[in-house]
Amino acid sequence: MTYLRKNIAEMAGYVPGFQPENEAEWIKLNTNENPYPPSPKVREAILAELGSDGGNLRKYPDAASREFRRVAAELYGFDADWVISANGSDELLNNLIRACAGEGEEIAYVHPSYSYYATLAAIQGAKVKTFGLTEAGRIADFPARYPGKIFFLTSPNAPLGIAFDKAYIRELAGRCAGILVVDEAYADFAEENALELVRECRNVVVTRTLSKSYSLAGMRLGLAVARPEMIAALDKIRDHYHLDRLALVAASAALRDQNYLREMVAKICSTRGRFAAVLESLGYQVLDSCANYVFAAPPDRDGKRVYEALFQRRILVRHFSDPLLAHGLRISIGTDEEMDQALAALREIG
Amino acid sequence: MTYLRKNIAEMAGYVPGFQPENEAEWIKLNTNENPYPPSPKVREAILAELGSDGGNLRKYPDAASREFRRVAAELYGFDADWVISANGSDELLNNLIRACAGEGEEIAYVHPSYSYYATLAAIQGAKVKTFGLTEAGRIADFPARYPGKIFFLTSPNAPLGIAFDKAYIRELAGRCAGILVVDEAYADFAEENALELVRECRNVVVTRTLSKSYSLAGMRLGLAVARPEMIAALDKIRDHYHLDRLALVAASAALRDQNYLREMVAKICSTRGRFAAVLESLGYQVLDSCANYVFAAPPDRDGKRVYEALFQRRILVRHFSDPLLAHGLRISIGTDEEMDQALAALREIG
Repeated sequence: MTYLRKNIAEMAGYVPGFQPENEAEWIKLNTNENPYPPSPKVREAILAELGSDGGNLRKYPDAASREFRRVAAELYGFDADWVISANGSDELLNNLIRACAGEGEEIAYVHPSYSYYATLAAIQGAKVKTFGLTEAGRIADFPARYPGKIFFLTSPNAPLGIAFDKAYIRELAGRCAGILVVDEAYADFAEENALELVRECRNVVVTRTLSKSYSLAGMRLGLAVARPEMIAALDKIRDHYHLDRLALVAASAALRDQNYLREMVAKICSTRGRFAAVLESLGYQVLDSCANYVFAAPPDRDGKRVYEALFQRRILVRHFSDPLLAHGLRISIGTDEEMDQALAALREIG
Repeated sequence: MTYLRKNIAEMAGYVPGFQPENEAEWIKLNTNENPYPPSPKVREAILAELGSDGGNLRKYPDAASREFRRVAAELYGFDADWVISANGSDELLNNLIRACAGEGEEIAYVHPSYSYYATLAAIQGAKVKTFGLTEAGRIADFPARYPGKIFFLTSPNAPLGIAFDKAYIRELAGRCAGILVVDEAYADFAEENALELVRECRNVVVTRTLSKSYSLAGMRLGLAVARPEMIAALDKIRDHYHLDRLALVAASAALRDQNYLREMVAKICSTRGRFAAVLESLGYQVLDSCANYVFAAPPDRDGKRVYEALFQRRILVRHFSDPLLAHGLRISIGTDEEMDQALAALREIG
């Protein structure tokens, strides 16, 4: 006998990327973390909020995240009621399903992309459909009218790194009966994004995270841009105090320092280009990446072999056992020095 | 036309206690915040994690909150697989409903207590039943066998401050077909708690928060103690990175400093006793409180009048328009100085 709902008792949990206990001993290129620290303004803001005795921590945070939302809205050129803050964009993905898809209703996403959508659907008891990708980077067999409640489009795609262009996303939005969620976790590393489609199409929601481009994976910060009706619904169903006081000031400080963001993103994209070029010279097939990682396949298309050989050298990358992905590796872009070490190891491994 | 589920479109959101923009100008006795700063060890731990450049924040936190859970488990005398961490106990209340009550299934709670249970049930599309309280502080008309999926018992009760004794909670657990969640947000201020019933009864879950007794409302930290099967289910359905790195180190540091906790709790309980006695001498009816607030009714039983008169004096307390509660006020226990100012104002208001 169990006290659990059937779908909960039976579902599998999501397994995040491996986190070694003693991180300092590893070159960690497996979870798309940013290799650089966040803006110095973030640390300053946290210290100011902490004060001389931590006394502010005894008080509830601003339940409405007013400052964070104001800063994000200004940055992206929307009114504040088009923006919601979140405890990582994962919270938004969760609450979008809760808001739009009831038990037995369907959501869809692209495979390969972020399998956590399926976990979230399982928690809700919603059904899941997946669409593949064509060689040309289009959604395979996407119907003229997709009747499901949500279609999640990760753009740039993880783990492949390819991005969908705006015209194509607009077309997909027109073919969705429900909402189209463009999960732009990596958009700051890309040339294009779908923000203006939120204004243009009734059913487009864009989610962002501060984990990657803003170097704040450790602070769990995300946001969504959507029409006010959707934002109001997401606001109603989130935990009313979902962000702590230090995370809130960190978010505003990070978003305000756009010069720092641009500098770090430029560095990472430059390292990415250099790394991809050398990989190709070693015979790897490397997909064009618009994110802070590359998906690359060794000449013998045995991703697992290379993963394990790197692991033995204390270099962590991501390998997926899924048949669509098993031939390659997703390698996060670290510092130039880290990537040089990775390349040296790959040369040795052959 | 809407993209939202019907229950989401139609439900009302939860309204947290009023947070004035300029907090420093108010005496704030309306959200049961602790008037004292957290343990100095909390600030030290946050500073250590932050380091000289905030570089740790670029990395994901420990998804499993291993240290926090280890410390909590040791403190409460359970194995670590009986304990789960949370982004405030609100996250647990939410996920307990998701784990156990599907759409159309029923959960119940005591009215008056924490109305957020009803909001969470509405998000899920679950049905809600409420039970009243008898004069003797028992659950009115609780059936020999309550068939619902969850019964939430807030003990000590908010906003009344009364606690349920262990023998009675054990009896209620035996009468629940589903789980009995004892929401012990305020238990550190009480003589008794229900932790040992988690071991004794198959269906008891205890939730705690670090917001009140540990002065960490601003950091959003909670935990639950339950049987491993339930903990595993809650683990599966939570956001995988639900706590940020600074919150995690704050939690462990706070739980480790039990001397500080005991000292602060003793201070607040002593202030509570003194404040209640003076209120009674002013003709107020004051319920015996086991929490960091008192529920008190003025001689004319017009809670709203006194609430408004205090508000004009920049003293914030909580008044509930519900007919069961409108005669009184819930007043959080602040420092001795704050309570003296509140008493002076109440004398003046009459």
